[in-house]
Amino acid sequence: ETADRIASFELAPKQQHAVSVAKQSRSCSRSPIGRQSETGNANPNGTCSDRVDKQDAAYFDSYQCLEVHATMLADRVRTLAYRLALMRAYRLVYRRIGIDIGCGSGILTHFACEAGARVVYGLEAAAGMCSVAREFLRANGHLDSGKAVVIGCRAESLNELPCDGGRAEFLVSEWMGYCLLYENMLSSVLDARDRLLREIDDGFEVQMFPNRARLFIAGYTCGDQPDADNSSVLDEDMDLLGRLYGCNMTPIVDAIELQKRSRPSVALVEDTSHLITDSATLFCLNLASLTKSELASGQATSGTFQLDAIQCANLDAFCLWFDVEFPGSNTRLSTSPFSEPTHWQQTLVWLPRSVPVSIDSRLSGQVCLSPNRLNSRDLDIEVTLLPVGVKDGLVESLADVDAGEELKFTVTLDSCA
Amino acid sequence: ETADRIASFELAPKQQHAVSVAKQSRSCSRSPIGRQSETGNANPNGTCSDRVDKQDAAYFDSYQCLEVHATMLADRVRTLAYRLALMRAYRLVYRRIGIDIGCGSGILTHFACEAGARVVYGLEAAAGMCSVAREFLRANGHLDSGKAVVIGCRAESLNELPCDGGRAEFLVSEWMGYCLLYENMLSSVLDARDRLLREIDDGFEVQMFPNRARLFIAGYTCGDQPDADNSSVLDEDMDLLGRLYGCNMTPIVDAIELQKRSRPSVALVEDTSHLITDSATLFCLNLASLTKSELASGQATSGTFQLDAIQCANLDAFCLWFDVEFPGSNTRLSTSPFSEPTHWQQTLVWLPRSVPVSIDSRLSGQVCLSPNRLNSRDLDIEVTLLPVGVKDGLVESLADVDAGEELKFTVTLDSCA
Repeated sequence: ETADRIASFELAPKQQHAVSVAKQSRSCSRSPIGRQSETGNANPNGTCSDRVDKQDAAYFDSYQCLEVHATMLADRVRTLAYRLALMRAYRLVYRRIGIDIGCGSGILTHFACEAGARVVYGLEAAAGMCSVAREFLRANGHLDSGKAVVIGCRAESLNELPCDGGRAEFLVSEWMGYCLLYENMLSSVLDARDRLLREIDDGFEVQMFPNRARLFIAGYTCGDQPDADNSSVLDEDMDLLGRLYGCNMTPIVDAIELQKRSRPSVALVEDTSHLITDSATLFCLNLASLTKSELASGQATSGTFQLDAIQCANLDAFCLWFDVEFPGSNTRLSTSPFSEPTHWQQTLVWLPRSVPVSIDSRLSGQVCLSPNRLNSRDLDIEVTLLPVGVKDGLVESLADVDAGEELKFTVTLDSCA
Repeated sequence: ETADRIASFELAPKQQHAVSVAKQSRSCSRSPIGRQSETGNANPNGTCSDRVDKQDAAYFDSYQCLEVHATMLADRVRTLAYRLALMRAYRLVYRRIGIDIGCGSGILTHFACEAGARVVYGLEAAAGMCSVAREFLRANGHLDSGKAVVIGCRAESLNELPCDGGRAEFLVSEWMGYCLLYENMLSSVLDARDRLLREIDDGFEVQMFPNRARLFIAGYTCGDQPDADNSSVLDEDMDLLGRLYGCNMTPIVDAIELQKRSRPSVALVEDTSHLITDSATLFCLNLASLTKSELASGQATSGTFQLDAIQCANLDAFCLWFDVEFPGSNTRLSTSPFSEPTHWQQTLVWLPRSVPVSIDSRLSGQVCLSPNRLNSRDLDIEVTLLPVGVKDGLVESLADVDAGEELKFTVTLDSCA
């Protein structure tokens, strides 16, 4: 009976095919395949919605790659945080109807079932993943018992859940991308919240897992050993290669450096002594009340900062990271450079030029995050750095202030990061 | 004067822009960006040449990523082989006009200049790379002296070189992709040979660097430690994760395994005891005489094999690798698992199912390589494995022959490999 009811929620065969013939991404990092060049060369007759459909197809394709899911499963910090949060919040989950947006391998659906949910609906738009999730949930006893149901469609396409009232009582989702908002999956989660979740309290405060997210910032210097460099190739001594090949490699080394700095990097800051300021919260999102339009406009995802230098060094980049919190417990999932590493690592937003700061410098400015206009899966990061000031109480004379110019620039976090 | 003559060989600004706005690939392995899903979703109004243009744009874009070039430069085996070959062959190079197809960073143009060439024309279709190559060649004294000239276009678009007669006297190119033929750059090199090289001997035998290429095959077993697995994620003990998360991970592990085997892998065979047969040459290409049509049809790039088992084991895959030779010396660049590793590593073509072989087994069959019909940068590999026989002189009775069925399948080496 359940199977029959579910069948009607599957995508039409033609749409399924369009997804399943697509190839997986080689770069099995957690990120949609870069399609910027495609949009750049877009057929002039193609409509905007054509372009978005293609981008979405590419996005969901990238999650057909099982290694992406293996990466996420191997991230114990991430996965255990969800398990702990759902277990600790069993009062909010027990005998309730849940929905898991973008269930992937089905692991969070499994956790919600374990925490005593009456039934959990896992929604997954990557067709190949639906069968994996079903097999996984079957092997763990949740599928045949009817506690877990996998629905193969994108959240926006589902009008109601196949249960009494058509709505769930709690929502779990692991929607966070690099720098929190890359991939823009949060907008799908908010959409599902508004349409598929039945409000059982004042607001969705105790029904959203997670229900709060914060973005942090700190100043970063390359110092002598740039540990933000993921590429083992560049660890090669290019001078040594130059001698081996009888040539001067400087122009190539310089061009590589320039290219690397022209876009944000996703990298692990292993040596926190490269963080040369204290850290500040840029913004905090309440996922129970945040609206889709606040998110789309970038209004809710902007913030000012004031950072005090703790070293004399060249400021080369801003380091961004996030955490999320869950209701009904004090469980927190942090991607801070001071916490255990996660697959999200940290995001480094390079400055167009290094800015010298002294121990008494105060950096202030603003960061605005918003979906890229051409590909909403990509994330525009606009940074304004005001002229460097000095900390309170440390002002001696104006001559001490290394004033400089206001620095304003926008970079895009895309699949090349 | 040289600058003026060259200017007309540059692409028109509009075309240049189309290339330069495109983003680099995240996966800075040496491979064009996967565009299969794009072709799958192709606009039905798009012509075939539209599709090919898009694929070519994506292909050249991928070489805008400087880390790709850094990877190639850091491959000492590769780069030193070219340096040595050109130095040793100085009689063939000295005071001659050279052409470097796909000059990239300009390193091979530099080597040819060092070896005494009169002038070397570096052709490069990735616009961003042309300026890098110019800076590099300038820093090494070849640009301002007019010994090196970088021309920003694809080889097929250039009708003649800006020199007397419009043709070069030798051609150097590093066109080899994974499994030798991935990327199908060789067809551009043969086209350039026929149109832009002046024949100074009987055939192009001493004018092509390299002038010979061979593909090899051996049987491969995963054995107990599958070292073909590049993913550190899968080295995780998934059972351990399952216990940590309170679930049975078997369906996910099985699905990952299945997905990995459904396409060829590019991987380093570090432990050659996984090679369970001797090796054989599949085919040898004479690049001085090979025609474009022989290459396009796959006629020249097919071959039969006979391999004798040297272990009792399960045959899981065929391992393919190549070498190339240069004229005027005995210089050879090998990507064999028995030689020093290169960035090409080896290619593993997985069988649909494991085939048990005993110490007296003889494997015979055929391998055909051809450009993929939808994306000619991808490489189709068709394998036929005849029923397993026994080595000569070892036949005792027909009952000893583990006959089985003929196994025939085609897989595609694409950017997901």
